[in-house]
Amino acid sequence: MNTVQGRLSVVGTGPGSVEHLTGAAVQALHDAEVIVGYTGYIRQIESLIQDKQRFSTGMRGEKERVAHAIALAEQGARVAVVSGGDAGVYGMAGLVLEMLGDEQLERIALEIIPGVTAASAAASCLGAPLMHDFAVISLSDLLTSPELIERRLLLAAEGDFVTVLYNPKSRTRNTLIRSAVEVFRQHRKPDTPAAIVSNAYRENERVELLSLETLDPDSPSIDMSSVVIIGNCSSYRKGMWFVTPRGYRIHGE
Amino acid sequence: MNTVQGRLSVVGTGPGSVEHLTGAAVQALHDAEVIVGYTGYIRQIESLIQDKQRFSTGMRGEKERVAHAIALAEQGARVAVVSGGDAGVYGMAGLVLEMLGDEQLERIALEIIPGVTAASAAASCLGAPLMHDFAVISLSDLLTSPELIERRLLLAAEGDFVTVLYNPKSRTRNTLIRSAVEVFRQHRKPDTPAAIVSNAYRENERVELLSLETLDPDSPSIDMSSVVIIGNCSSYRKGMWFVTPRGYRIHGE
Repeated sequence: MNTVQGRLSVVGTGPGSVEHLTGAAVQALHDAEVIVGYTGYIRQIESLIQDKQRFSTGMRGEKERVAHAIALAEQGARVAVVSGGDAGVYGMAGLVLEMLGDEQLERIALEIIPGVTAASAAASCLGAPLMHDFAVISLSDLLTSPELIERRLLLAAEGDFVTVLYNPKSRTRNTLIRSAVEVFRQHRKPDTPAAIVSNAYRENERVELLSLETLDPDSPSIDMSSVVIIGNCSSYRKGMWFVTPRGYRIHGE
Repeated sequence: MNTVQGRLSVVGTGPGSVEHLTGAAVQALHDAEVIVGYTGYIRQIESLIQDKQRFSTGMRGEKERVAHAIALAEQGARVAVVSGGDAGVYGMAGLVLEMLGDEQLERIALEIIPGVTAASAAASCLGAPLMHDFAVISLSDLLTSPELIERRLLLAAEGDFVTVLYNPKSRTRNTLIRSAVEVFRQHRKPDTPAAIVSNAYRENERVELLSLETLDPDSPSIDMSSVVIIGNCSSYRKGMWFVTPRGYRIHGE
């Protein structure tokens, strides 16, 4: 009987700077023998893992990384798979669970350590845009059809959800952000607050508080390092802050 | 000229146990002279603020607490307003910004420290339910009309959003959770994973992984200490885990 039990911790490293990791995330990195992750995320947490073995690959090497992490854990190692933001929001928790076989799940101790997701990080830079119901939509059409993404944008706009767009634009893909801005302009007033937050809590942080009217989908600020947040019909701007009131009756109280 | 500048830090304390606060949140508590918050949240972080002055009131005392925090900061104090989960998601960041006057905003240094929101905490206990687009809806009708909440439930169900219900039921309010379960049953298969997570990372944590068919809206597990998560059409159960695949093409790959 195999008594060596490996451990696989999927660790959300938050927006990027080490002070926004949770204590549990820092502890999981500390306890791990091997750190597995995308090169960019590994670099952000370098100061926490200096004495560790690591296995890192580029952005598209996700399956290779997870396969390697699982193989190491099967041999009894304590492995931390790092994921930017919250590992559970478009992060590595899903791929790890998709790739783990049923028998591996019995042999390996799996834990998911939550983190601060990009929506929360961006919101905190802006003030309080997420005080009411919101939708989170990724504009990456790598694994999802553009039609489904457009349908969700329309429903979120119709439902007056505050809306957070992840992966709003890449170098090869810029049409969905145009559709998004168009559909929200059809459903909300031109002065509805809208914002682009790039590299929150990282080098080159940039916060642009705009309105639906002035949000330019072709802005070079919109890229894979940014999220876009669009307010609901009650959201307003207060000086440099983006505020969504908590309820629909309290505004102007 | 008044050179004394107070500081107001709105601090998300995460799901409840101190290891899920970020380093920045711990630092902000450490730097503050006075901690202001709901008695229940203050109790959860007691070990971090033992030498601090505090001003705490019950759940409904929000405006009184914020007014007091602003008054103290105006006198030059460093004040931390604590908020469970992420201060920016249905948390205290909004009320603080709503109540701060324009002149006070010039005199007081305001910062919002993001935290792990309940959706991320609950998701991490379940596996990876939030790997695709999701909607966050509060079922509290204290400040929002039931009609708007029902409309959003319908749109989220139609759009195949993974859906996270905050404040799903209180002692005096149990009809919206019934509507929610009914509308999702009309739009998704009976075996769609659905879960109740109560007191994530706190005493009395309880995780119930169910399906839309077996999720009972009248369950005593559903209360103000819980969130309910309903999967999308691709979500599936894998042993004790709730998995939403990252894309719509990868499932069964």
